[in-house]
Order: sequence, then C-alpha cells, then structure tokens
Amino acid sequence: MARTLITGGLVVTASDEFHAEVLLDGERIAALAAPGSQDWTADRVIDAAGKYVIPGGVDAHTHMELPFGGTFASDTFETGTRAAAWGGTTTIVDFAVQPKGEALRVGLDAWHAKADGNCAIDYAFHMIMSDVNESTLREMPGLVEQGVTSFKLFMAYPGVFYSDDGQILRAMQQAGDTGGLIMTHAENGIAIDVLVEQALARGDTDPRHHGEVRRALLEAEATHRAIQLARVAEAPLYVVHVSAEEAVAELTAARDQGLPVFGETCPQYLFLSADNLAEPGFEGAKYVCSTPLRPKEHQAALWRGLRTDDLQVVSTDHCPFCFTGQKELGRGDFSKIPNGLPGVENRMDLLHQAVLDGHISRRRWIEIACAAPARMFGLHPRKGTIAPGADADVVIYDPHAVQTLSAETHHMNVDYSAYEGRTVTGQVETVLSRGEVVIDRRTYVGRAGHGRFVPRATFQYPG
Amino acid sequence: MARTLITGGLVVTASDEFHAEVLLDGERIAALAAPGSQDWTADRVIDAAGKYVIPGGVDAHTHMELPFGGTFASDTFETGTRAAAWGGTTTIVDFAVQPKGEALRVGLDAWHAKADGNCAIDYAFHMIMSDVNESTLREMPGLVEQGVTSFKLFMAYPGVFYSDDGQILRAMQQAGDTGGLIMTHAENGIAIDVLVEQALARGDTDPRHHGEVRRALLEAEATHRAIQLARVAEAPLYVVHVSAEEAVAELTAARDQGLPVFGETCPQYLFLSADNLAEPGFEGAKYVCSTPLRPKEHQAALWRGLRTDDLQVVSTDHCPFCFTGQKELGRGDFSKIPNGLPGVENRMDLLHQAVLDGHISRRRWIEIACAAPARMFGLHPRKGTIAPGADADVVIYDPHAVQTLSAETHHMNVDYSAYEGRTVTGQVETVLSRGEVVIDRRTYVGRAGHGRFVPRATFQYPG
Amino acid sequence: MARTLITGGLVVTASDEFHAEVLLDGERIAALAAPGSQDWTADRVIDAAGKYVIPGGVDAHTHMELPFGGTFASDTFETGTRAAAWGGTTTIVDFAVQPKGEALRVGLDAWHAKADGNCAIDYAFHMIMSDVNESTLREMPGLVEQGVTSFKLFMAYPGVFYSDDGQILRAMQQAGDTGGLIMTHAENGIAIDVLVEQALARGDTDPRHHGEVRRALLEAEATHRAIQLARVAEAPLYVVHVSAEEAVAELTAARDQGLPVFGETCPQYLFLSADNLAEPGFEGAKYVCSTPLRPKEHQAALWRGLRTDDLQVVSTDHCPFCFTGQKELGRGDFSKIPNGLPGVENRMDLLHQAVLDGHISRRRWIEIACAAPARMFGLHPRKGTIAPGADADVVIYDPHAVQTLSAETHHMNVDYSAYEGRTVTGQVETVLSRGEVVIDRRTYVGRAGHGRFVPRATFQYPG
Amino acid sequence: MARTLITGGLVVTASDEFHAEVLLDGERIAALAAPGSQDWTADRVIDAAGKYVIPGGVDAHTHMELPFGGTFASDTFETGTRAAAWGGTTTIVDFAVQPKGEALRVGLDAWHAKADGNCAIDYAFHMIMSDVNESTLREMPGLVEQGVTSFKLFMAYPGVFYSDDGQILRAMQQAGDTGGLIMTHAENGIAIDVLVEQALARGDTDPRHHGEVRRALLEAEATHRAIQLARVAEAPLYVVHVSAEEAVAELTAARDQGLPVFGETCPQYLFLSADNLAEPGFEGAKYVCSTPLRPKEHQAALWRGLRTDDLQVVSTDHCPFCFTGQKELGRGDFSKIPNGLPGVENRMDLLHQAVLDGHISRRRWIEIACAAPARMFGLHPRKGTIAPGADADVVIYDPHAVQTLSAETHHMNVDYSAYEGRTVTGQVETVLSRGEVVIDRRTYVGRAGHGRFVPRATFQYPG
Repeated sequence: MARTLITGGLVVTASDEFHAEVLLDGERIAALAAPGSQDWTADRVIDAAGKYVIPGGVDAHTHMELPFGGTFASDTFETGTRAAAWGGTTTIVDFAVQPKGEALRVGLDAWHAKADGNCAIDYAFHMIMSDVNESTLREMPGLVEQGVTSFKLFMAYPGVFYSDDGQILRAMQQAGDTGGLIMTHAENGIAIDVLVEQALARGDTDPRHHGEVRRALLEAEATHRAIQLARVAEAPLYVVHVSAEEAVAELTAARDQGLPVFGETCPQYLFLSADNLAEPGFEGAKYVCSTPLRPKEHQAALWRGLRTDDLQVVSTDHCPFCFTGQKELGRGDFSKIPNGLPGVENRMDLLHQAVLDGHISRRRWIEIACAAPARMFGLHPRKGTIAPGADADVVIYDPHAVQTLSAETHHMNVDYSAYEGRTVTGQVETVLSRGEVVIDRRTYVGRAGHGRFVPRATFQYPG
Repeated sequence: MARTLITGGLVVTASDEFHAEVLLDGERIAALAAPGSQDWTADRVIDAAGKYVIPGGVDAHTHMELPFGGTFASDTFETGTRAAAWGGTTTIVDFAVQPKGEALRVGLDAWHAKADGNCAIDYAFHMIMSDVNESTLREMPGLVEQGVTSFKLFMAYPGVFYSDDGQILRAMQQAGDTGGLIMTHAENGIAIDVLVEQALARGDTDPRHHGEVRRALLEAEATHRAIQLARVAEAPLYVVHVSAEEAVAELTAARDQGLPVFGETCPQYLFLSADNLAEPGFEGAKYVCSTPLRPKEHQAALWRGLRTDDLQVVSTDHCPFCFTGQKELGRGDFSKIPNGLPGVENRMDLLHQAVLDGHISRRRWIEIACAAPARMFGLHPRKGTIAPGADADVVIYDPHAVQTLSAETHHMNVDYSAYEGRTVTGQVETVLSRGEVVIDRRTYVGRAGHGRFVPRATFQYPG
Repeated sequence: MARTLITGGLVVTASDEFHAEVLLDGERIAALAAPGSQDWTADRVIDAAGKYVIPGGVDAHTHMELPFGGTFASDTFETGTRAAAWGGTTTIVDFAVQPKGEALRVGLDAWHAKADGNCAIDYAFHMIMSDVNESTLREMPGLVEQGVTSFKLFMAYPGVFYSDDGQILRAMQQAGDTGGLIMTHAENGIAIDVLVEQALARGDTDPRHHGEVRRALLEAEATHRAIQLARVAEAPLYVVHVSAEEAVAELTAARDQGLPVFGETCPQYLFLSADNLAEPGFEGAKYVCSTPLRPKEHQAALWRGLRTDDLQVVSTDHCPFCFTGQKELGRGDFSKIPNGLPGVENRMDLLHQAVLDGHISRRRWIEIACAAPARMFGLHPRKGTIAPGADADVVIYDPHAVQTLSAETHHMNVDYSAYEGRTVTGQVETVLSRGEVVIDRRTYVGRAGHGRFVPRATFQYPG
Repeated sequence: MARTLITGGLVVTASDEFHAEVLLDGERIAALAAPGSQDWTADRVIDAAGKYVIPGGVDAHTHMELPFGGTFASDTFETGTRAAAWGGTTTIVDFAVQPKGEALRVGLDAWHAKADGNCAIDYAFHMIMSDVNESTLREMPGLVEQGVTSFKLFMAYPGVFYSDDGQILRAMQQAGDTGGLIMTHAENGIAIDVLVEQALARGDTDPRHHGEVRRALLEAEATHRAIQLARVAEAPLYVVHVSAEEAVAELTAARDQGLPVFGETCPQYLFLSADNLAEPGFEGAKYVCSTPLRPKEHQAALWRGLRTDDLQVVSTDHCPFCFTGQKELGRGDFSKIPNGLPGVENRMDLLHQAVLDGHISRRRWIEIACAAPARMFGLHPRKGTIAPGADADVVIYDPHAVQTLSAETHHMNVDYSAYEGRTVTGQVETVLSRGEVVIDRRTYVGRAGHGRFVPRATFQYPG
C-alpha cells in the first residue's frame, strides 16, 4: 500500500507538541520520528515545514439531510462530508432519526442508505429516539452491538421529538445497563412553547424573539433536570449544544460532585450572539437554531468551561438551511424558521482562532475538537490523535494563513455563512483520511464513497 | 551514541494508548512505530511485551536532606534519587531553602552543592522563600532566568518559614510579573499554633493530636486566602499537598470561576488516613506530616478532584525521617515529631493501583504523575511524555506484577514504610533516564552523577 | 359585648416577649397592659400565671374530607376544626379542589358547602387547580377578589392533579398579574410513576418503598423547576411540604439570589422519618404521605432552614385516613395507600417541644406557626399575633405540662396517631376564637358554626 | 410619675402593624389599646394621627470622641447623642477602646467617664480589644458581668488595633465560654497596607484610591477567615460594617450552613458609593471610611441580605471628622485621612426611604434598626420594641414629611453631611426616651445626663 511521509511539521496532540516526521502506511499511521533521525522513503512526501500536523477533526454532532419543519437540511452526506474535509474534519457522527411510531432500526437503515457510498470522510451514527417505549427500549442493546452506542432524547419540541421525564428516565436506565450514552437536547420545550405562542400573539414574530422566548433559564432548568434523572438512573449523561451560562453552571455543579456528566458547546455559541439574531431585515433568521444564540455575556462561561474541562467537546450541530426558500419559511413567524446553522467546515479554524485569542491552548484545541469527541463516543484510539496504529486521518494546518470566511468561498451547500466576512488566522492546507489525500493544498481530491461507517465502542468512564 | 529499542509494549501517555515500538537514540526518544512497521536495529533491545511503556514519573515535590526541627530528612540526593528511579520516577523537583536572613542565592547554591554529582536521575529546584523582603524580591527574576521558576511560601510554621499575607502578596506580584509561579503551603499556622499549645497544655501529646489540631477548616481557610491574594496580585497559584475535602472545595470554586489556580495532592492523603495517626504505641508518628492525614471520608473528594482536573498533580512531598532517632524526638510532644513521610519510591505504583481500583483512567495516571507536573513546572515537552524529541526517560511497567510494599524491600533510606504490608498490583521493571538504563529488570544499574540539573521554563497558562 | 381579661401570662409574639394583661372586647383584642397598670374589669377573667399567652395557630395546609384514591380524608370540617382548636390552632386554610373538567367555582362552592356551619374555628381556602386552561385561568382574578388568593398546582400525580410545565407557567403568569400566589407540590411525578411501576413489578410493595421510590432528588428537581418557572413568570412561589435536604438547598439558593420564593415544611418531616415507614407489619402505612418521610439525616436541614428563614412556615398537611379500612387499601401495593397523615392537633405542641430542644426560639415558634402563615396568606394583622385590634384568637399555653400524644386521647377523627406514645412538654390549656372560649382548661366548649370563612388579602412582598 | 398618652398613630413593630393608643407611665410603656377602647387620662397627650409610633432606634455602632490618626471624632457623647435623638435613635452602643498595653478596664473606665452625665439618650458599650493576651482574656468575664458583653477585634490596622488570627481565635474561645460576642472588622489589613504603600509610591494619593486599595476581595477574605476561626472556636460571630457583595456572599454561605454568624451593614454602603469617593477636588475625603464605599453594583447584594436576613442589623458606624482641619490631614496622602463618616442622625430616615423605595417592608425597617440590634446585643425586651413593660423609648414618625438632608440643618457636630442635598420622605417628629420627651415636634427639649448606661445581657442563639 501507499506510504506517505509528512516532514517538517509540529505535531500537536491533546497532550503533546513536538517536531516530528510522520509516516503513514496505507490507512494507518505507521510511525513518528524526530526530524532527521530516520531515512524514510515514501510514495508521497508532504512538506509541513512551518505547519502543524494535527489529527483530523471529529465532529460529533451533525445533521445531514435532516427533515425539519417540512424541509430538509441542505447538505447531503456528499456535500456535507466534503465540506467537513475542507474544514479539517475527518469524522462526523450524524444523528439517525427514528420515524415516530416505527422501529429505531428503520431510522438507522434510512440513515445508512443516505450515507452509504456518498461520504468523503468516515462517519458514524447516534440514534435519535422519537418514541421511547417498551419496543424501542428493547432495540437499544442491539444498536449498541452494531456500533451505534449513543442515543439522543429531546426535552424540547413537544409533539415532534419530545420525550417526557419518564421516557428519559427509562432510556437512561437502559443505556446505563447496556453501555449506551444518553445525549439530551436540554430545553424545557413545554414551557418554551407557551412563551412562543404568547410572543406570536403579541406580534413578536421576528427572529430575535426566537432567542428571547427560549430563555436561558429554561435551558438551565432542563439541564438540571436531565442531570437529576441521570443520577436516579445511575447513568452517564452528555448534554448537547450548551449555550447558556446558567446551563454551564449546572454542569459544573454536577461535575464538582463527581457525577459522570458531560457537555458540548458549538462554535456559534462561542463566536456569535443574540446580536446576530437581532440583525435588521430578516437577516436574523440565518442564526436561528436551538438552543439559541445568547447575549455575548454568556461566552465567557463557555470558554471557562472548555478550559477547565466542565465542557469537554466542541461540535458544530451542523444543520444548514438556505436563507432563500428555507429560512424564509419563517417570515412573519419565527417559530416556522427551520432551526439550524451551517458550520461543519468552520469549526477547526474558529477554534484555532481561539488559541490565538488566548482562550485555549493548542493542546486543548486538539482535545476538544478531536481527542475528546473520539473518546467520548468510542472512536478512540482510531480517531482523534496522531499515534502509531491510529487511522491516518491527518491535517496539515497552516497557523499563519489568513482567511476570510464567506459563503462565496465555503463548500457547504448553503447560501450564506454564519461567519460572513470574519477574518481568522489559520487554515487547513492538506487533509488525509485513512491515508488518502482528500484535500491537497486546498484542492479537493477526495471522492464520495471513500468515507466508511465506523462502528463505535461504548463510552468509558473515567476516560 | 547508543540506540535502544523497546518492543512489544503498550505506550501510555496522558492522551493516548497504543502499541508501538519505541526507539531511543542517545538521550532522546527518536521514534515511535506501529509494531512490525520498521526494521530498526539497536544496541539494546528491551522486550516490553505485556508491559506498559510510560514516561518516567515527575515528582514535583521532594525534600532531600531537608533540615527540620533540628534533624535532617534521611534521604540524601544520592539515596533519594536512586529510590525515585526504583519507583519509576526520573525527575524530581526538590525545594532549595533560603537560610533565614540570607540571600535566596545562598540557599540555591547550597542545594546545587548537595545534588551535584549525586543524583541517579535528573532534578530541578523550586525555591523556598523564608524571608520575603525587598532584597529577596529583587533576586526572583534572576532565579527565573536560571531555571528556578517557582517559589514556595509557607502560611504555616510561624517563626520558621512563615510569610505573612503582605509578604505573600508581594511575592505573588513579583512572580506574576516575571513568570514565576507561587506555591503555598496553605494552613493557618498562626491559629494552629494556638491549638497546638492548648492541646499540649491539656496533655494531648500523642501523634493523633497532630492531626486533630491542624484542623481541616484551617487548611481550607488558608487555601481560600491564598486564592484571594493571588486574585489581588493577578498571579497564578499552585497549592501544595492538599489534603482536606474543604480545601478541595475552595480550589474547585476558584476554578469554577476560571481562576488560574492549581492544586497538588499526595499518595498519603489518597491511601492513608487519620486512622494511621491513631495507631497504638507511638506508631502514629510515622504518619506525621503537614498538612496532616485526614479522616478517610476526605479521600473521595481528592479522587474526584483528580478526575475532573480540579487537582492537577500528585507529588509525594517525600521528606523521610527514621522512626528510630528522628520521629522519636516527639515522644510525649507531637509538635516535636519531624514532619514528613517517605514516598518517592511508591507514587507511581500507588497511582497505578488507583487505576485498577477505578479511581482514574490509565491516561489520567500518566497525566497527574508525569505530564501535568512537567507542564506545570516548565519541563514539558522534555519530560512527562513519550514523543519523538523528548528526553528518553522511559519506564517499562509491568501492570500484572504483584508486590508488597515494605521497608524490608524499599530503597529509600528510612527505617519504615508508610505502606508497610500493603499489596499492590503493578511494578516498575526497567527504567531509563536520558537513554541510560538505571533500573534493569529490577536491578539498579544507575550511578550517582548521571542525573543533571534541569533548568525549567516558566509556567504557561492556559496549558 | 363580652369582655375577657387574661392576666398573669407571658405574651409571646413573633418579635416580642413580655408580661402583660390582655383585654379582649367582643371579637377583638382591645388592649395589652403591663401587669397591675390598669384597673380593668371584665366579664371573664382568665388566670394565665405561669402560662404563655400566644396567638392562635394558623395552619395553612389542611385537607378536610379530601377525596383521594377512592376514599375521603376522615376528618370533616366539624371534627377537624374541633381537633385544631384542641391543638391551639384557630385558623385553618383548607384546599378547595376543582373537579377535573369543571370550573374552579364548582370546587369552591363545594368546599364552602362542606365547611359552612360546621367549623369550630375560622377558616379560609386555597384553590387546587386540577385543570389549567383558558377558562380556569380567567376565573382566577374573580377568586382573588373573593378572598381565595392562592392556587395550588401539582407536579406529581399525573392523570389526577398533575399540571405540566406549560400549565404551571401560565398559572404563575396569571397569579403574578392578579396578586395570587402559586403553591406547588414539587415532586417529579412523571419520573416517580416510572419508579413506582418498576418497584411494584419487582415485588417491592411495602410502605417503605413508597419513601424509596419518591426520591429526594426528584423532590429537589421539581423544586428547582418550579423556581425557574416562577422566575420566567416573574411571580412569587410557595413550595408546600418540603421534606428533602436537597429541596431545602434549592430554596436556599433561590433566596440567596433574592428571589421571592418561600417554603413550608410539616411536623412529620421534622419529627418522623423513613424509619417509621419501615415499621414492621403494615404499620408503615400510617406514615405514607407525599412528599414522603425522609431518612433522619434530612431533619437538620429543615431545622436550619426554619432558623434562618429559608423555610418560613410550618403547616400540617393534615389529611387523615384511618388505618382500618383506609390505609389498608394499600396492603400489597403501597401505591394504593391513601396519602396523608393526621396532625392538625399536634403542630403547636410539637413545635413548642422544638423550642425546648433548642431548635428554635419561642419567638420563632410563633413566627412559623402563627405570624408567617398569616402574613403569607393575607390574614395578617387579623390573625397570627397578639395586638390591639387583632382578632381575639388567643391561646393560653402551659409550657410545663407534660403530655403523651396518643390516638386514645386525641380529638382527630382517625384511629391512630402518627406520634403515638411520644411525650412532649407543653400543652394548650385554653383557646379563644374571636373572643369566644372554645377550649376551656382542656374542655371543649365550642360549637360547630362559630368558625367563619375569612376572605384573604393578597400576598405582599417584601413582607 | 408622669403619664403620656399617644393617640391616633399606627404602631409598627418588627412583626406587627396596628392602630393603637399607647400609654406611657413613667419610664415604661404601660399599655396599648385599640383606638377608643379605653378612657385613659394622661399628663400629656401626643396626637400621632397620620403618624407612625415606632420604637426608638438602636444604633449598635458609634464612635463618639474616638481618637484616630492623631485627632478625635468630632462628636462628643453630648453632641452625638443629641443628634441621635434628633434622628429617632434612643440607644447607642459605643465602642470603649482598650489603650494598647493597658487593661480593658482602663479603656472602659475612660469611656464611662466620657459618657457619664453627658448623654441625651441611653447608651451601652462594646469593648475594643487592642491587645489580646492572657491578662485581657482574663478580664473578659468580668466585663460581661458588668454588661459589656461584646468585644471587637480588628483584622485591619496593623500596629494599631490589629489582632492576629491566634489572638482572634483565643478571644473567640473565651467569648464562647462566657457568653460574650466577638465582633470583627473584617479586612485583611496586612495585605491592604502593602497596596496602600504601593499606591502612594505610584502617586495615587487621592481619596478614591482609599476605596481602590481596600479591595472587596480582601474584605471577603477576612470575613471568610473570621467565620472559619469562629467555627474552630465554636463561638458566634458578628461582622461589622459589611460593604462588599463578596463579603455578603461569605456570610450567606455560612448561614446556609446554619452557623451562628451575623452581619451588620451601614446606610453609607446602602446609599453612597465609590462615586462619592471619586468626587472632584478633595471632596472624596468626606466619604473615607473603612470598609470603604464600594461601586454601586454592590448595593443590591446588601439589600438582598437585609431582606432575607443574611444581614441582620443596620448601624451607622458614626465616626465624624470635620472636613476642615480633620479630613484635610490627608491631602496628598489618602492614608492620613481620618476614617469615618457622620450618620447617627440619618439612619432611621434613610431606612424609611428604603421602605418607600421598595427595598424592605415597614416591619423589616423596625427589625433591622431597632429590634434586631436590641436582641443581638442583649437590650431586648427593654429596647427595640413597643410593648407593655418596655422602656418608653418611642418615636412619633411622620411618614409623609419631606426633608432635605444637609449640614446646615443637621445636629451632628461636623461641618458636612454625607448626604448633602438628598431629599427623603419621612421625618422624626417627636422622641421620648424612657418616657421623657427629648424631641418635641422637632424641638430639642432633652438634656445631657438624661441618658443612662444600660448594662447588657449576653447574646442568645437561636434568637
């Protein structure tokens, strides 16, 4: 098989930084060596002088082609995984959705069908349970065996994905018994829907009201509730897309008690804010997602949490809807705006900018974007690090390149960028997925179908 | 120079676990490779099949030959560093002591003289400031330049090492300006001395009273105070030998606020308790150290802190005094018992046992015992990890060997073991320091003088 | 009208203790005078030498004749208010229940009908909302105007009294607008019902399992949730029958933030425990109520809360069911045991015992048992204190009398005492309600129909 | 003896509000009666129609004639107690100061000499311990017996009043044993003095720097430390002049744990702020006191604490120094500005304004200004309430009068008002002290020497 040698770069992992030559052999990383210590030959030599050599990113939260509110997220697995690769991400974990009233299996099969043969990079699945009942509870162990080891429940969206506290408790108990990990969308959707209705009745129909009615207190409340239910069930818990300072506080308090509770945030909560939702015209619709963007003041708590490990993972919750024709469905009624932002391509860059801004260290960048999601979701040690034997998912990252984020240049299938015009320092130069070059000095050379489904092991704690 | 090849082992670092061959070239790690991927030759081949290949331990808190209460810690740099090597530790950071009324430099020179030519493994120094004043404050930047980048202050021991809050504040300000890191022994010694005097007056002279008068509340109080002073000084803080649950809570609260505050605990607080201090006869004297051993109930908080990174480092505070002739000085008056326990040889093993007991993961074992102390004290990336370019400080660790800790078999120069009779699983088999074998399949083959002084870089935050 | 003079006693109010003669004129307190300072004449002179003269108790939580689980609480308004008088309570606030699917008014009328002409002492009503909807929300202001100014919602008992979070939020908003006060039974009934079902399926059918499945964490969770909903609604909140330490912590945290959040506990949580639920045979059924009795360790937090005003009121939640024929309905299935304890007669005595036990001061006794419930529920200054102009609801309390609580001697219409055999010091001697003697030196001389409905004012904050 | 009848007013106590006639007989309150219920005759009738009849204020923190920094507080006991009466305060508790190196007795005798024969209202003494040692510790029980039952220690002012933590611990132990209450000035004076020196060295000599160097964190630190020392000593604690939000948080946390810890704040911290310290020219000097005025943002926490009883008392810390000739000593060096503000005359009015502003209820006004200080310091039930048998210290308060606070109209012997130009609603109209009119419809008719020393009982907990 083909050998690739990466020379001259600074390897950065979640715990180390060192100059090394990296030898890839076939799909795996074969060896790392101090510069000049080996006389390695290779089929391809990549010069990474002045660059970082980092593990490919692991984005543990994407929604390709998600049906939502009568439309579909605009990235297919083909376009979405290609964009991910452009952004230095080499593994995604997408959410298969159980169709209400049917088996989990039905949803999983549908997702396999969507992804199979279409992905530029590797992928795995979480399972969204739309219907927790005796039958779906019984299906859980089987899915775990097939490498779908995490299950998402919604405390929001009554009538759609919503599970009540009894269903959540049962699913947590079952997950606890079988090694599955429960993920929650933690917002009190029952209370929020009252506020939505009242806002619309008052004529508060603009996108900014989306952020206002989805109160931070109601995210914190649901986060607290999910934690208590997990305690009762004696199961670990992973809270997705944490955005509110008060929710971070709940997770922090739980961790201070030693509970196996984990939290994810997303770049949009770190770099955007309620100010974007309030942009004039209907521009705010571009930033409608749930949990919503919060006032800027919340960001400090998120960065703090990422620094001190009260938040462990940064994923994107990539769920793009075009402004034209999709976001526009909610003109005059914010509750009809499809929820979601594009971002799978931007995560690694934005977090590198955070390194430069002093929010996190380089090692922590790799931890929260690569290693921690890989460990949390049973992909470690194949994914998320640069080490002999690991999958040769490697990114050559130029820490000095300056780029301006824009819909004009991005590769996601969506007609706007949430970060339009933002200049960041740092850019993906070359990306390899299992030893094959996908992005070559900023040219896409990959192919749909290279990416494979990766069955995942169960969550291990302590990790 | 000589090349060593380590084959067949599982490399464990702070973030990764992978099977690899490890090639050492001279003093450095040259390369890591997937098993069988390279045809490396070497002067020496070490078979690590079934073993772990881990970074040599970094013990950031030792007191070789420390003068205390009219006697001296019983390990010299020669005996102490040899014992460290036996226990898988390849770097110690010892505390040079400023003689009261003299320059810091005088103390540092004295410590260099004690260590130079005597050490089996590498060493570095922290500086104990006995006297914070205009003159010693002015000396600090010079020491930082020479690689002595951390300074310890005592909130206990009035009349001996004690600094008042104004002195601590000034030293923190100076450290903040020059990149130095202030370490505090956090106990309210002024209040404790009142309780000591009252206990002795009551006839409460046994060793267990040492633990009782040094109240957990007074450790927590001083910890809180040190944190507030560090906030005022805008300087980071490292609290040594945290033992009380309430002190962990203070550090946790500080970290929850995002303050650059760090904490160390020691094996004795994790594995021993006030029950040992209360052992009949005068046996309790063996366990007299400050902060004191606490009731068993405190241990859970320490483990929790280590798991969620509210405590970052486990050091030994190795400070041995023989029972006969030294600890005995305090018969009839616990306040005259020299404070300190032997432990430099036991740390890696006890923490491995903690992995087996489910307290921490293997990676976390390496993090708290090797990588974190190396980063905290400016020894990273030379020390604390297995990576190309790092110092070839490597331990072959047998995770299955069963051993019984005992003074009969240990190598520390002290007539008792704090863990006498305790059986643990896991044992150091072979140890290399900068590429030279120091322990070869449980035979000491090192030499005094191999170990060198390692100047340290300054503390970096976020790390 | 008749004048009564009470001489020689120590008047105790929520803020003062003083020896005084108390002159009652008709239904009101006319005057208080230093002993010997006035030459008052009266139709009746009561010698209170060596006794306390205290306000009649206000029990803000009773359930006379409550239908529950197919049976009815065994005290009628006649027997229950007579027993209340025996115990030194001169006002009760009972809960009118909206019949599911009907108007609030229907329930209120039914309760008026039950009480009218039957009560020995004065009474008022809270309204239980079984069905929060547009129609019942619209009824709320009308009830407030008629003196029913507080509304209770259940987070437990799905399918019976349960309101979801959206209903609770709406009711809180409405209450906030009209001056009503929302009271919540804070337990996560949805999750508890899962645990109940699982316990029964396991064969855990004994009364003690009632306490075990109704987890303290799920009381705390619901308490937290109610608080957050009240914050969103910008309304005050009163949490009934707080029993778990963790729930006290939630209230405490809310009050530390300055939120208008209030809590009530009951004598059973202060004096009984899960040990009672575990009494052999089916004896534990006597102690089945919800929230359940907790392990003894929770009591300290309740007393602390009462001392530092994080809990403001002690009511009884008096809801008696006979052991024979009622509690027995749950043999073999704890979930069928009618929930509730008798207690309206014991509250003042038990809390006096708490004074002797050092838990609270005499003034605090009067505060939590008389003045605070009167203020909280708009009965102040007519009820809850001894002051000129207040209703002449006065108790002559013998602080030295020793009594043994027992079903043999109590006056509640129930065949057991929750405090059977418990000896307490202190006893009601004489009770006046609006100037009429109801209990005369431990003889009942009152009459059904003396007691009147008292319309209540709205809650005032700060109080 | 003379009888006085007060008619038509609304009596307000810490727990009740009722319209009543109040009959005073000699030095005591004889009786209270519902309007029109009695045919009382009296030597003097005061018409209080439309007014409040409230207990005379108890100011538990004054410093008449205090020597400080080479000068003396400008109010003598004669002028200061007269001003107090003008402001509706009828009892002060002043601080006798132990001269360093002499007996407590010497200080107490000196204060008796200053006050005896000079006071318009009653007075009591706390004892400032400048020197905690074996001898002064032995004096404490004797002082308690003579009615000086509280002892103040300073954590600030090294070299002057400062006690170290060992001295504080010993005094607390002794107080705990004898029923005395320790009061602390909680600021870390050792650290503050470093910051003072550094500020002056930088040329930061203006009054505003006084506030900046006395960091809120260093008040909170000392508060925390005092609490921990009190826990170790098992003694109650009263913290004077709490000004920082962070200090309130420490007290709150302590009370949440049920510790017998109490806190006082002062009107200046509630109504003034660091903005005043920054007034141009040297005007800021008028507001120099310690603890210092804080940024406005701190006020909300103080009000919250007063509302939920985490702070119990509002005293003035009245310690006036004239701007001309006294405050001016610190031109060019803020550390030489005498510390202290005038306020004894303004407290009752400012707190009444707080009632109107919605911060507290009327009852809470009387609680924090009259009843709580009386109870806390053993003056209850003689002082602090309106009840038969209590001292006839009564204020007729006009809640509708509008006044403008000003040095031109105030009666304190100081050339400026800290509240110059502030308009408040509410004014003292008439004041009686033990039955004698001191202020008669805003004319001073009292006399020096009327006021007597009041020996105090010991602190009782729970209160």
